[in-house]
Amino acid sequence: MSGKRVSLRESRRQRGSASRAPGILTSISDRRIPTYDLVPEESVELIHENSMQILENQGIEFRDEIALADWRRVGADVKGANVRIDRTLLLDLVSKAPSEYIHHARNPRRSVKIGGRGMAFAPIYGSPYVRDLSGERRYACLEDFRNFVKLAYMVPSLNVSGGTVCEPTDVPVASRHLDMLYAHMTLSDKPFMGGVTSPARAADCVAMCEILFGKEFLEQNTVMTSLTNCNSPLVWDETMLSVIRVYAAANQACLISPFIMQGANTPVTTAGAFAQLNAEALAGIAYAQIIRPGAPVIYGATLSTVSMRTGAPMYGTSETQVLTFLTGQLARKYGVPMRTGGMRNGSKAVDTQAAYESAQTMLPAILAGGNFFLHSAGWLESGLSASYAKFMLDADQLTVLQRLASGVSLTEDDFALDAISEVGAGGHFLGCGHTLAHYETAFYSPQTADLSTYEQWEEEGQRDALQRATDIARNTLNDYSPPPIDEAVDEALQEFIGKRRTEIPDGYE
Amino acid sequence: MSGKRVSLRESRRQRGSASRAPGILTSISDRRIPTYDLVPEESVELIHENSMQILENQGIEFRDEIALADWRRVGADVKGANVRIDRTLLLDLVSKAPSEYIHHARNPRRSVKIGGRGMAFAPIYGSPYVRDLSGERRYACLEDFRNFVKLAYMVPSLNVSGGTVCEPTDVPVASRHLDMLYAHMTLSDKPFMGGVTSPARAADCVAMCEILFGKEFLEQNTVMTSLTNCNSPLVWDETMLSVIRVYAAANQACLISPFIMQGANTPVTTAGAFAQLNAEALAGIAYAQIIRPGAPVIYGATLSTVSMRTGAPMYGTSETQVLTFLTGQLARKYGVPMRTGGMRNGSKAVDTQAAYESAQTMLPAILAGGNFFLHSAGWLESGLSASYAKFMLDADQLTVLQRLASGVSLTEDDFALDAISEVGAGGHFLGCGHTLAHYETAFYSPQTADLSTYEQWEEEGQRDALQRATDIARNTLNDYSPPPIDEAVDEALQEFIGKRRTEIPDGYE
Repeated sequence: MSGKRVSLRESRRQRGSASRAPGILTSISDRRIPTYDLVPEESVELIHENSMQILENQGIEFRDEIALADWRRVGADVKGANVRIDRTLLLDLVSKAPSEYIHHARNPRRSVKIGGRGMAFAPIYGSPYVRDLSGERRYACLEDFRNFVKLAYMVPSLNVSGGTVCEPTDVPVASRHLDMLYAHMTLSDKPFMGGVTSPARAADCVAMCEILFGKEFLEQNTVMTSLTNCNSPLVWDETMLSVIRVYAAANQACLISPFIMQGANTPVTTAGAFAQLNAEALAGIAYAQIIRPGAPVIYGATLSTVSMRTGAPMYGTSETQVLTFLTGQLARKYGVPMRTGGMRNGSKAVDTQAAYESAQTMLPAILAGGNFFLHSAGWLESGLSASYAKFMLDADQLTVLQRLASGVSLTEDDFALDAISEVGAGGHFLGCGHTLAHYETAFYSPQTADLSTYEQWEEEGQRDALQRATDIARNTLNDYSPPPIDEAVDEALQEFIGKRRTEIPDGYE
Repeated sequence: MSGKRVSLRESRRQRGSASRAPGILTSISDRRIPTYDLVPEESVELIHENSMQILENQGIEFRDEIALADWRRVGADVKGANVRIDRTLLLDLVSKAPSEYIHHARNPRRSVKIGGRGMAFAPIYGSPYVRDLSGERRYACLEDFRNFVKLAYMVPSLNVSGGTVCEPTDVPVASRHLDMLYAHMTLSDKPFMGGVTSPARAADCVAMCEILFGKEFLEQNTVMTSLTNCNSPLVWDETMLSVIRVYAAANQACLISPFIMQGANTPVTTAGAFAQLNAEALAGIAYAQIIRPGAPVIYGATLSTVSMRTGAPMYGTSETQVLTFLTGQLARKYGVPMRTGGMRNGSKAVDTQAAYESAQTMLPAILAGGNFFLHSAGWLESGLSASYAKFMLDADQLTVLQRLASGVSLTEDDFALDAISEVGAGGHFLGCGHTLAHYETAFYSPQTADLSTYEQWEEEGQRDALQRATDIARNTLNDYSPPPIDEAVDEALQEFIGKRRTEIPDGYE
């Protein structure tokens, strides 16, 4: 087994470092268009100043004894759980975070750069329910989890396999993280996210990665990017902090994400909401750097706006769009990768509400300069449900956005003046040589879109996008075959999981 | 009657000029966020250079004897229908076009600024079919036309009543323009668009505006913005040119819009498509300036991408997004207002395809710096159908985008540091004073969105956005009452229409 792991590393070495590997790194995941700056530089500084005042004057709670001791050690002003951090200390710590890192996949061609122009797209995270292929809403199970991993593997526009793509509610909570990580490791060869529900589970994920990638490789490289949330307002709790400790110590990446419900757990005003989330994210990033200077982290937040009418979270609102653009500008100021986006919505049906809110969330995130996009496919019903059909619909739209992000080519051949002259006034370009030379790669026709006439569409049963996408999800699963994995590595993973199952107290926690 | 018209003018004078009037001009229609520049300045110049080469070396056809004589007179190189225009002549003419103008409404508070930071949103244009309140697809009739005018009047996010909001197929083509303009003039007090199907009909529209606004007012002011299309590639036809002549001579505005189906009537490559559309639009704008220097015009195009698989037009593609951003950059280079956007899509159903493609079209248009947004509500099925439900769904999303365009406020009160301190770590903001002071105007809850829990939603019949929007359209029409109009003016309009009906040869043309 150990020999096999050497051979995985060898193969990586032979192909060159992942950052130079061909494939996804140089195609969909490179943003070649400028970022959109919503506010001028002086407004960025004003926002920063307000966040600094929160951290310096009011402070933020770290509800965890180890973290409080860590903060005391580095010179923060700790009183009870309250930690006041002056800007010199804070920014010195934040500056240790890398501006970009490679999230390695076991297939080096699928490693992704996170930060700078790199863009990583991961599917939905954390849904207890699914909308299955029959349209039924039911509790998610491990089979669903495996299906979403398979779909993410098959879909070119997703370059990260994800984390808790849905909650496999039919397996025990205590060992669920093992089942989930094993699915990511074996059913896909794209990068994945680790468990975050306890430090012991995070440690299990690190141990499994040591088996998959080799201990030596893992020490030097990041193979997991995991999700940690701040309990807004201004609370980092023991679970999240201890998970950050496990991953940061192992040089594994964390999303440091305040969970923002604007108006409920932040001020109702956007400036206030952002000043707070910025303070929360920076405090979390700084803490990860205390644990291990240089540990990869991602700055950003989970964004929703709370309806003052019903208390429901809303998505794709102008407020979340503003927060998204500001997140990008501040991430660039601090020199850290940015988490954003997601095909997020509050709809209970795969309908126009779902699509509009998703697009209104995702398109600004692309222009804002996002690096890590969680919930990029499948999200429905405020994240309570993962939808098979929406997964395919979202993946299609992601492709549109990724093509936008790849920019426009302006070579002499692209300007096609000869073709314009050849075709002449009133002609058409469908048969001309220039079109024939380019048409295969020219456009992307979304798979889930209907491009027939009304009459054809009517004759074929008036099927809507939901029905078409459901079929495509079903066919994609039928077409799935797993990427090869070394048998010895697989056996070692199974052995580890088997051992841990006997050690972990059984039953639902 | 004449006295009444004076009184309309008097009332306008008393309230101050329309450009300084309160209301829409200073609310939804002002863009307060920066534009997004996709390409650097040197690329803008490269695109410009390619367009100049098309117009200088290949030329463009003006299939209209009067226009050809006009071009000869100003010194262009005319051979047959082909007109070659050197850049000095072209840019000199284009520079005469105003960078912005006020499109006056009969209610001065509803006049809109077009150009600069002004944004005008008009509904769908030109559909022969409707999807009615029962969901049926059928030919549009005058009653539908009137209904869409009423809906546009009732919906705050539309500040232009529109033009051919659908084709009233139950009234004769020859006098249809009279019925349409009369509906806009009497059922709404928002700005409207004139007829473009023949110069005589355009002249009728000017005559009706003389009645509504007074001849004197009309001579100095723009009260119609009308749609003229270039027949790409590189053909301006007699109908469009003669309509441009009527409107430009009367100081009325025209959209100068190439009708782009990328890959079919342009090169398949985006750079070539844009170079061509830019040449076409500039030639049209220059021609309007020959007719009357300073005549208001809008630069832009109707954009779709043609599927190389089925030949169908596609909307919200990355190619149309790129063309949209480039349109904005070139419009700013030439100092002319920009036409863009629309909630455009190729879907046959009001489904996620419709919504995704619409949002992918409209959001970039807002960031591109658009000034006149045609097809902003109701568009379905490549424009073949106007949908009542989608009209309301689109209007909701427009509001989100208009709020985004209004920017973010960063006052000390907005930063809310006192509230953050008052609520403290782990608290919530729902009841705090700062929230209570702001919550009423804080967020926009889309009317068509469902914000209940899944259980409530299920109990209430699992209604999707289409069903909800249909109800809202029905209720909005029930709530409609017309804005007041001077009886004498109304009588004069009816008298004019009656007279013209007897003069115009009857029957369908």
